Amino acid sequence: MTTSPRQLGALLYPGFEMLDYFGPLEMFSVVGSDAVQIHTVAEQAGPVAAAIGTEGAVGPRVVADHGFDDAPPFDMLLIPGGVGTLAELENEAMMEFLRERCASAELVASVCTGSALLAKAGVLDGHRATSNKQVFALATQQSDRVHWVEKARWVEDGKFFTSSGVSAGMDMALAIIDRLWGEDSAAKAAGEAEYVWNRDADDDPFAAELNSLARQLGMA
Amino acid sequence: MTTSPRQLGALLYPGFEMLDYFGPLEMFSVVGSDAVQIHTVAEQAGPVAAAIGTEGAVGPRVVADHGFDDAPPFDMLLIPGGVGTLAELENEAMMEFLRERCASAELVASVCTGSALLAKAGVLDGHRATSNKQVFALATQQSDRVHWVEKARWVEDGKFFTSSGVSAGMDMALAIIDRLWGEDSAAKAAGEAEYVWNRDADDDPFAAELNSLARQLGMA
Repeated sequence: MTTSPRQLGALLYPGFEMLDYFGPLEMFSVVGSDAVQIHTVAEQAGPVAAAIGTEGAVGPRVVADHGFDDAPPFDMLLIPGGVGTLAELENEAMMEFLRERCASAELVASVCTGSALLAKAGVLDGHRATSNKQVFALATQQSDRVHWVEKARWVEDGKFFTSSGVSAGMDMALAIIDRLWGEDSAAKAAGEAEYVWNRDADDDPFAAELNSLARQLGMA
Repeated sequence: MTTSPRQLGALLYPGFEMLDYFGPLEMFSVVGSDAVQIHTVAEQAGPVAAAIGTEGAVGPRVVADHGFDDAPPFDMLLIPGGVGTLAELENEAMMEFLRERCASAELVASVCTGSALLAKAGVLDGHRATSNKQVFALATQQSDRVHWVEKARWVEDGKFFTSSGVSAGMDMALAIIDRLWGEDSAAKAAGEAEYVWNRDADDDPFAAELNSLARQLGMA
């Protein structure tokens, strides 16, 4: 294990889901900046608006400190989901960024529909992965070379951690902290954030809603 | 009940805690923008940096769309906590904003040390309230006219909802959604966010850590 802080690239794009992003970042934050340093990054540096609700109204703006062109090397990547995923699936600059940066990163973590982006980029080929349950089809339709897991709070396979929808990202982040810095660090992080950690990756009460929204949208 | 969307003023200040802010905003977001519209506000409009870790390193920046001077009327207020609370306790412009806006709001919600700000402003006088458990003394030292509750995930008293630390804000937000739009809406919001809702306001596993950090810091 390295003793210098890991550099985390936290990806923003228009229409990202707020808690997908800030849930995991909160958990990494309480571990301390001597363990992990957070860098916000988007295709272009500057403010990026979150999505509000399933209709994707324009929400709070978060500043990307780096664009794809000037982002420093990252040890870890965080890929949130959100309504904006749909547009990014067609964004070749995003696909290129993911292919290049996933190859060099020690660890890649996605939340919710973020795994659809990773699957479309091809970086999950041959890996087990999960995604948001209510729009699971959005992920599975991107690649049949990924072993999609329908019932999991999160899935860990090699360097890739993929989580189920939104809040599941916090449980996944704690599992990452467990792997990188030990279980005591993960329990301490959960305690400092007063978070009731769902520790069992296989306990997924939301799997029962598989594709409930995707069917409404005619996607599954 | 009104049928037009409620206007939510979500307060930012330097050194706010990320999940204090975006946990509740996520829950309000999934209710939909026809129910609640989110406005970011700070003393001055523009980017405001979150705190990282207990040392309060500079974290991701969120854009305040409004300053105190040009903020529209709000039906609801969200007051996050964070390391930055300490400086804001001495900020008279903040105190004035809280006094004025809490008087006119239908509902005021604080997370973590956000209740210390409300207590210092005097708006919690005579009310029951809670705060972050590990630095509980920071809240209690601001006012002896507040009935501080040492063991609670969140406390609801009239227009004021105050939550325990960080993650507790999500459970409180769901309780607010329950009050304003009904239990079905709250359960639906939790489901869409794949959040395991801690529904019992009195179940507080973190109360055992009361002032553990405050004692380290010589505050209690």
